[in-house]
Amino acid sequence: MHSPLPTLQQIPASIAAVADYEPFARERMSEQAWAYMAGGAADELTLRDNCAAFRRLRLRSRALQELSGGHTRLELFGQRFEQPILLAPVAYQKLVHPDGELATVLAASAVRAGMVVSTQASVALEEIARSAQTPLWFQLYVQPDREFTRELVQRAEAAGYQALVVTVDAPVNGLRNREQRAGFALPAGVEAVNLRGMRTLPPVTNRIGDGVLLGGPLLDAAPTWRDLAWLRALTRLPVLVKGVMHPEDARRAVAEGIDGIIVSNHGGRTLDTQPATIEVLEEIARAVEGRVPLLLDGGIRRGTDVFKALALGARAVLVGRPYIFGLAAAGAPGVCHVVQLLRAELEVAMALTGCRTLADIGPTRVSR
Amino acid sequence: MHSPLPTLQQIPASIAAVADYEPFARERMSEQAWAYMAGGAADELTLRDNCAAFRRLRLRSRALQELSGGHTRLELFGQRFEQPILLAPVAYQKLVHPDGELATVLAASAVRAGMVVSTQASVALEEIARSAQTPLWFQLYVQPDREFTRELVQRAEAAGYQALVVTVDAPVNGLRNREQRAGFALPAGVEAVNLRGMRTLPPVTNRIGDGVLLGGPLLDAAPTWRDLAWLRALTRLPVLVKGVMHPEDARRAVAEGIDGIIVSNHGGRTLDTQPATIEVLEEIARAVEGRVPLLLDGGIRRGTDVFKALALGARAVLVGRPYIFGLAAAGAPGVCHVVQLLRAELEVAMALTGCRTLADIGPTRVSR
Amino acid sequence: MHSPLPTLQQIPASIAAVADYEPFARERMSEQAWAYMAGGAADELTLRDNCAAFRRLRLRSRALQELSGGHTRLELFGQRFEQPILLAPVAYQKLVHPDGELATVLAASAVRAGMVVSTQASVALEEIARSAQTPLWFQLYVQPDREFTRELVQRAEAAGYQALVVTVDAPVNGLRNREQRAGFALPAGVEAVNLRGMRTLPPVTNRIGDGVLLGGPLLDAAPTWRDLAWLRALTRLPVLVKGVMHPEDARRAVAEGIDGIIVSNHGGRTLDTQPATIEVLEEIARAVEGRVPLLLDGGIRRGTDVFKALALGARAVLVGRPYIFGLAAAGAPGVCHVVQLLRAELEVAMALTGCRTLADIGPTRVSR
Amino acid sequence: MHSPLPTLQQIPASIAAVADYEPFARERMSEQAWAYMAGGAADELTLRDNCAAFRRLRLRSRALQELSGGHTRLELFGQRFEQPILLAPVAYQKLVHPDGELATVLAASAVRAGMVVSTQASVALEEIARSAQTPLWFQLYVQPDREFTRELVQRAEAAGYQALVVTVDAPVNGLRNREQRAGFALPAGVEAVNLRGMRTLPPVTNRIGDGVLLGGPLLDAAPTWRDLAWLRALTRLPVLVKGVMHPEDARRAVAEGIDGIIVSNHGGRTLDTQPATIEVLEEIARAVEGRVPLLLDGGIRRGTDVFKALALGARAVLVGRPYIFGLAAAGAPGVCHVVQLLRAELEVAMALTGCRTLADIGPTRVSR
Repeated sequence: MHSPLPTLQQIPASIAAVADYEPFARERMSEQAWAYMAGGAADELTLRDNCAAFRRLRLRSRALQELSGGHTRLELFGQRFEQPILLAPVAYQKLVHPDGELATVLAASAVRAGMVVSTQASVALEEIARSAQTPLWFQLYVQPDREFTRELVQRAEAAGYQALVVTVDAPVNGLRNREQRAGFALPAGVEAVNLRGMRTLPPVTNRIGDGVLLGGPLLDAAPTWRDLAWLRALTRLPVLVKGVMHPEDARRAVAEGIDGIIVSNHGGRTLDTQPATIEVLEEIARAVEGRVPLLLDGGIRRGTDVFKALALGARAVLVGRPYIFGLAAAGAPGVCHVVQLLRAELEVAMALTGCRTLADIGPTRVSR
Repeated sequence: MHSPLPTLQQIPASIAAVADYEPFARERMSEQAWAYMAGGAADELTLRDNCAAFRRLRLRSRALQELSGGHTRLELFGQRFEQPILLAPVAYQKLVHPDGELATVLAASAVRAGMVVSTQASVALEEIARSAQTPLWFQLYVQPDREFTRELVQRAEAAGYQALVVTVDAPVNGLRNREQRAGFALPAGVEAVNLRGMRTLPPVTNRIGDGVLLGGPLLDAAPTWRDLAWLRALTRLPVLVKGVMHPEDARRAVAEGIDGIIVSNHGGRTLDTQPATIEVLEEIARAVEGRVPLLLDGGIRRGTDVFKALALGARAVLVGRPYIFGLAAAGAPGVCHVVQLLRAELEVAMALTGCRTLADIGPTRVSR
Repeated sequence: MHSPLPTLQQIPASIAAVADYEPFARERMSEQAWAYMAGGAADELTLRDNCAAFRRLRLRSRALQELSGGHTRLELFGQRFEQPILLAPVAYQKLVHPDGELATVLAASAVRAGMVVSTQASVALEEIARSAQTPLWFQLYVQPDREFTRELVQRAEAAGYQALVVTVDAPVNGLRNREQRAGFALPAGVEAVNLRGMRTLPPVTNRIGDGVLLGGPLLDAAPTWRDLAWLRALTRLPVLVKGVMHPEDARRAVAEGIDGIIVSNHGGRTLDTQPATIEVLEEIARAVEGRVPLLLDGGIRRGTDVFKALALGARAVLVGRPYIFGLAAAGAPGVCHVVQLLRAELEVAMALTGCRTLADIGPTRVSR
Repeated sequence: MHSPLPTLQQIPASIAAVADYEPFARERMSEQAWAYMAGGAADELTLRDNCAAFRRLRLRSRALQELSGGHTRLELFGQRFEQPILLAPVAYQKLVHPDGELATVLAASAVRAGMVVSTQASVALEEIARSAQTPLWFQLYVQPDREFTRELVQRAEAAGYQALVVTVDAPVNGLRNREQRAGFALPAGVEAVNLRGMRTLPPVTNRIGDGVLLGGPLLDAAPTWRDLAWLRALTRLPVLVKGVMHPEDARRAVAEGIDGIIVSNHGGRTLDTQPATIEVLEEIARAVEGRVPLLLDGGIRRGTDVFKALALGARAVLVGRPYIFGLAAAGAPGVCHVVQLLRAELEVAMALTGCRTLADIGPTRVSR
């Protein structure tokens, strides 16, 4: 595939941390794409607090521990990962790079990082799967058209995806003011190709004084716990729910036979002034009592953030914007580099806190 | 009516939230009018904290709840409202738009929002009432001339106002330094027309070393609980007190037979360094124990703020500056848009926290 | 007396609060005088926190209280004051205005405010006393020359000063870096005239590696509780200690027969990172149990600050920099205006919290 | 020795505090050297918090205490110090001044301050020792080549160093992004001369997807508690461990027969988001129960910071960047001045809190 978009030919030494990709990415992205990828809901307080909450946590170093033979490997649902860092589902990656999700899956394979492919990927899920040499999971938005939803799940299974990640925190889009102000719309050539042919809801007539959402067709068709049970029965894959921020929802998910939970506030893109994900992880971990693995996304910008999430109860984390900015700035090598930077920082944090393996990372390593 | 003041002909896409009206309003208002409407008492700490306190509260989302058939309707004093958002009493609206309160009541009627008309409206209360197709309440300052005060109440009743809102937190004007520095004075053509013909106090001779207020005629004539009892007996309308910030005052109001309480610090315009209204709502709700409905104003800039106020004990909120800035920028359509924006944000917040109706919005949806 | 220094001929409307005098004062003062008057010790954290701590306190308004016949009068040591605001001792006032302390005492007399005259006044204490028509107190630094100290006390008594304020928090000067950087030195014509003829300590030879202060003659001569007992026995005037920040020191002062305590950190000019004065007032009030009156200085910039200090245990406050800046900007009228502004703000705060007299101002009016 | 680097010929009056050296130093240093000396790990949160945490602590002044005959002397391991301020080990001092560590030791001798010489000094440890007229300690990094490590210890003993400071918090280098972005490398003529001839580890082949550190030769050779026991047995000098931030590590060090503990996070240069050193001092002091002396470094910029560290449990402190900036700006006189400034501030703090000697400085002098 031919790439009209400039990428960094060589990664400059000035990129020493994943945040350093941001200005390069901004320069290479349209204002609209930047607003879509970098923005969040409303005043973006949750977007910022996801990061700030990690910075507020303190790490407790330990001296002179035995460190030989250490590693960062883990196993989830019988799948092996080299590091506890997965690529989060992000829609429409062709917005930032002409190869879109194909560049990302190439990078994920190179660094052996798990990747979660979005329902709204701009490349067909089967095509992504054909390029993968690393575990792929499929992120599912339950569509108003349930039959189409079932077919999506079946396509993902057939293509070799190894887990189903059901997003449960977005029955409506968030009000992303930055996007609205930028006049964001998908450019020609970028679309949710996996949703082609799906029945859509009739357009809503928005009369002054009328309700906007409640009582309308979109929310009447929003997924509920019944739909989750239906999905659970529909597939042999492990099913995770993504978007849990409340211990009651976590308990219910476990009771419904769900295999894993991703603590997420959708990267601050849905409901502003939600807590940071790392702020609720512990209470959710207490509710789940280890019965299913917890993952977390939102605000991970450093290997020390990965460490903190693991210390407070996550088995692994997902990163979104960091690799998208790496992709925008430098293509697949940028994505590789982002994962490597986070992993190197995680390893240094482990060494300096005396942790040989991920299992050594516990709550005593973190304080407030 | 002819409008010499420019308004936005079409609302630009860059206005995605009510705060986006502010720069447009500022540009269209005189420096003096801006100081009057946007400013607050002294250092404006309470003015800012009213907003900041909402931002400090965290919303707890819930996943996969049943949302079909939801709505935002409520009933107060037998009156039905489409959404729990009323237009707060704001004086002298001709300062910001040539149609003043008439534009506002047109907008309120269009979006079926309740409106509280100020004693100091720049349009006769009867004329506003003739244009209304939505519930109107009348805000009353108890005047030193109690006979005139009685007549005002009777005029409001006769004109069809459906509740009386007695302001109890302003026996003296706040020291609004921003106004003073701007040299604010009412321009020609803008006056408190409803107070024409009222007896006023003799001017105070301000000698160096003398007291400014205490011991003077204004405070000697300031309203007390006795005046409230007199008002309560005077009218058949529901009576609300506006400006309660202390649980003891709320208890006393209930004991005096008052029908409703508006938790308010006068938009930060009277006594600086008071708490934010949302900070005291819960203790007032505990004192009132549901015996009368609570409303709240001060700092509402987002539908999530409306949600938070309802979660912590309010039945509805009032907004002031946001619609004034909409009025200044775009006339009646601007006011409509402001209400619609807040309502849309409220509905999204309800959907993402699993609330079908206002009754579902409770304290478990908010944390600190 | 001829005044070569320009003062504001008329106070402009843009001065609506005491802080508004600051830029005018700065413009009229030399860089060195500004550094001396506006600056504090080291990083000036305590200087700033004195003010910030007041802003952090919240006032609780009360509605519909009886306010007629109110006033701000009080009595201290048998002396009557129109308002609980005294002018704090500030050295070398000729640095900011050619009339120096004579302009200040004129203003104090006009607004009937108590004034505390500094040992380091740039006008003879007797000359100030001759111009006074308001209670004067004398601030005393205990000098290494105790005999001279005794004579100072006797001169103050003879001149009609009505109380002795002994500063106890400055056995050494603070390290006021701002002054040092500005190269502050007293200009010709400004000196501590009351100290003329006093024996001074021999100069210290400052060899590298030697101690700077401890073990030197200055600290060997520093006043102790024994000196305070000597002073207490020496005079028939009420004796206050100024500079108490610890409850143990307050208890000791009461036990030593002291008549009043001024909670003060020397305006942030001695030891940086001390607490704000308002932060320690309550614990000192608990230690003193009402046995002697407490006063407070440091950080008062608003009438609401005066109110808060009274609510938490002070009988009155002293202000320093605010009146000095009024003096620098506008001479005696500026000092008058500063007191009037603070008093007006205090009266509004009293009216809006339902306090008729100072005795009504109690701890329930303030929260954190 | 000839000095090609300009130094301040006379210290200007504008340098009133150690922070005032910073801009002078920056101007005299290369961008790379500045990044190396001034920078810290990752986002430099710990670097900044080391300082900020001192500023958050409050000092409690005391009045009218007896101060005559005071001093700042102390004894540690039988060695006498004029003040509780030592010069921390800092590598490669020729980066900032042509005389490097020789200028520093000259200054330390002049002000009789203890100095800890780094393993990575740019001057031979024996040459430094020959210039010293003050107690020298030797800081040791345990090298993968243990035999070379043993020889280093023996060289230090032979040269007259009086204590061994074993750094235990740096089995790997921190990820110092500022350095990386500046492209830091040692310039010609600056090297770790004391490590000449040491065997080094084979270079690591860094393949994409591979671990960076864990499982590699560096961490397999990292020092452990066994190595500490070996060192303890190897030398007759008092042995301190530097880099303890956890009470468990402090307890273990005491149990291993270590003579002193330096609470340190390596100046924020290793693991970012560690707590500030002053934040953990108290819990470590409780763990150690006075069995060995505690020292502290990190964030000391004022004599009040020295005071606070002593109040919360340290016997002395070490300063790093402050004297390095003094060295860069003004050579040996700058280093002298930095120590003198800190000492003068400490003495003022002692006088104003009523402490005659270091033994009087206790926890009641500090509050939060």
